[in-house]
Amino acid sequence: MERPGGRTARVRTSVLQAAGDALAEQGFANLDLGDLAKRADVGRTTVYRRWGSVTAVVTDLLLEMAIESVPRVDTGSLTDDLRANARLVVRTLTHHRQGPLFKAVIAAATWNEVTAGALTRFYDTRIKEWAPCVTDAVRRGEVPSDTDAEEVVKAVSAPLYYRFMTGTGELDEAVADRAADAAVAAARAGVFSRANGAR
Amino acid sequence: MERPGGRTARVRTSVLQAAGDALAEQGFANLDLGDLAKRADVGRTTVYRRWGSVTAVVTDLLLEMAIESVPRVDTGSLTDDLRANARLVVRTLTHHRQGPLFKAVIAAATWNEVTAGALTRFYDTRIKEWAPCVTDAVRRGEVPSDTDAEEVVKAVSAPLYYRFMTGTGELDEAVADRAADAAVAAARAGVFSRANGAR
Repeated sequence: MERPGGRTARVRTSVLQAAGDALAEQGFANLDLGDLAKRADVGRTTVYRRWGSVTAVVTDLLLEMAIESVPRVDTGSLTDDLRANARLVVRTLTHHRQGPLFKAVIAAATWNEVTAGALTRFYDTRIKEWAPCVTDAVRRGEVPSDTDAEEVVKAVSAPLYYRFMTGTGELDEAVADRAADAAVAAARAGVFSRANGAR
Repeated sequence: MERPGGRTARVRTSVLQAAGDALAEQGFANLDLGDLAKRADVGRTTVYRRWGSVTAVVTDLLLEMAIESVPRVDTGSLTDDLRANARLVVRTLTHHRQGPLFKAVIAAATWNEVTAGALTRFYDTRIKEWAPCVTDAVRRGEVPSDTDAEEVVKAVSAPLYYRFMTGTGELDEAVADRAADAAVAAARAGVFSRANGAR
């Protein structure tokens, strides 16, 4: 006999996997809870009772993605830490499954407030995970002491997401490295200092 | 009697206005050519014959928006030019009609390739319009001579669009100015130099 926790966890894993696959393949607009149950090989009643809506499944998926995401690196250099972060973002956005999945969720967030909230929490979690790269650099004297760490981390992702959503350029390692280098240069120049209005 | 050109131009203006209103109010997914004709007070046949699809109307709208957009400023200082650009972007993205309109089109671009192409051309046009702010700054010796002007302009918009799409922070003048200052600092540090792999 299995522990109920084991089965519950497995059901969640299967349904979130199915939701991610479906989002990547067909976008948010065509998601259907019954289809997800079938895809996940899980009873419809279980899925309806546990999540109740497609939006709830996507919210849960974003929570899981935030938790499962790669932890920050610690290379001892702000540039190298942020380059690692930028390369990770580029790998994610250009991944055959993750790229379309992110596009689908970002699109859904424009018309669905619950998804928008879940998406913001996903990014907040990721930003907070990598912010210590900047506070460590502050301690090492690489950037001004009042640097807003989260603003620096956002600055690394921003040009990568801009290209991703607007199609205004390739996404590769060179672009990733430049995004990191630009954030470091701006941080060094004091642009992200709280005294400078960063928040 | 009116010149045909006058009427044709007026029909286009009315239909594009209706399309922009509808996009802002209800998003791309619910756009319908017949509804647009009614909203624009233009005959259905005219609209079907001239555009043929909702996607074609949105493509035409993006073309018009690119042409009608505010031209670059020329303050004589790269920081001030790019701050003006960033503030314009913030005003657009926080505008009660333009903000939802941009969200709708960016979302539609994730699942509709024609719209994605039109959106990319819109941004390419805007980037090229403002790029001379950077080439002028190169001539004035404010940034390295091999600075990639378009990359600098993209770097100004990127953090603003990142916040817009992910909800990870306010959009106001202070944020706009910081986006411009960060791009200038990175450009001065040579991050956007072509020797550094910018393209």
